[in-house]
Amino acid sequence: MQTSLLEKLIDELQCLPGVGPKTAQRMAYNLLQHKRQAGIDLAATLNKVMVEVGQCQSCRNYTENDLCDICLNPRREQQNLLCVVETVSDLAAVENSGQYSGRYFVLHGTLSPIDGIGPSELGLSELESLMSQGGVEEVILALNPSVEGEATSHYIADICKSNNVAITRIAHGIPVGGELEMVDTSTISHALMGRKQF
Amino acid sequence: MQTSLLEKLIDELQCLPGVGPKTAQRMAYNLLQHKRQAGIDLAATLNKVMVEVGQCQSCRNYTENDLCDICLNPRREQQNLLCVVETVSDLAAVENSGQYSGRYFVLHGTLSPIDGIGPSELGLSELESLMSQGGVEEVILALNPSVEGEATSHYIADICKSNNVAITRIAHGIPVGGELEMVDTSTISHALMGRKQF
Ligand SMILES: [Zn+2]
Ligand SMILES: [Zn+2]
Repeated sequence: MQTSLLEKLIDELQCLPGVGPKTAQRMAYNLLQHKRQAGIDLAATLNKVMVEVGQCQSCRNYTENDLCDICLNPRREQQNLLCVVETVSDLAAVENSGQYSGRYFVLHGTLSPIDGIGPSELGLSELESLMSQGGVEEVILALNPSVEGEATSHYIADICKSNNVAITRIAHGIPVGGELEMVDTSTISHALMGRKQF
Repeated sequence: MQTSLLEKLIDELQCLPGVGPKTAQRMAYNLLQHKRQAGIDLAATLNKVMVEVGQCQSCRNYTENDLCDICLNPRREQQNLLCVVETVSDLAAVENSGQYSGRYFVLHGTLSPIDGIGPSELGLSELESLMSQGGVEEVILALNPSVEGEATSHYIADICKSNNVAITRIAHGIPVGGELEMVDTSTISHALMGRKQF
């Protein structure tokens, strides 16, 4: 028997993280019953985001433009600080703390030779370019304290040293083994204020 | 500041049941990072379902065709049975039991005059047409034992009587494998009232 459109939707909704068959079914029925226009709008925006959103040419944050809103914002005051994060979720977590108004650099991962993720996949030469262009006085590492995160931190520390850029890491308050994006904003504020020489 | 496309997506994903800001953010980043094509496919299917899926002309199940797959399936054996359910989710639950191969009728709600939901909103004249056309020997009520569910059951029972169609209801009671102390009092009441000779 041919798959119905609705079965196809319930199947495809399961590409979303944390969505299994039951949840997908509930989502599909709920939209059909009450929210057709919201579903149509969501479909249009989802397509647009998947097609048009790429990485900021400066910091690798997600954006549909050449430069992201953070890089384009002239009112951010700590332009001499550059906070390096693993993911855009981590960037959002630091940003939501409200304690940081510097720049960011998003690695979109950590060094992992076994998975074929090396310095070029993480944009580390772009990161070095940012430093050699001047204006960056301090790099703040906000990576997770995993083995790969540590290895990546050391790699970036070496780049900083060759470019005479100070390097610190956020330290206090982040529970070891915890995920940065799950940490509350106050903990992140403390971690930023308590950053130490790396 | 103008809302970015990504912020718009995170906002619109929250039209899905059970999805708050954190989950929506995680979904959007996960698709962007790993599953662009899956996101594009999902957007296309979602739009198609919202625009094309309507109700089966016979049973009011969701379908993109005139008649749903269940109504069109000639291998279903209990064609003389008609199971009435409140929602398509309930239809799916009965169907997944694998114990039923008759027909269905979906009310998409229950009688609720205060909300403007009367017999015509529930398709009750279409349900009566099905009975008067013949071929339906027994209507099985699978409605929830709420006040509205009971009122609706009684209304449908009257239609059955005028059309000389037998009427039964599914048994409510303690779920198989369920712990008695975890079951709500209303279910326990129903289980007690529906007790059988041991
Ligand atoms: Zn940027
Ligand atoms: Zn049907």
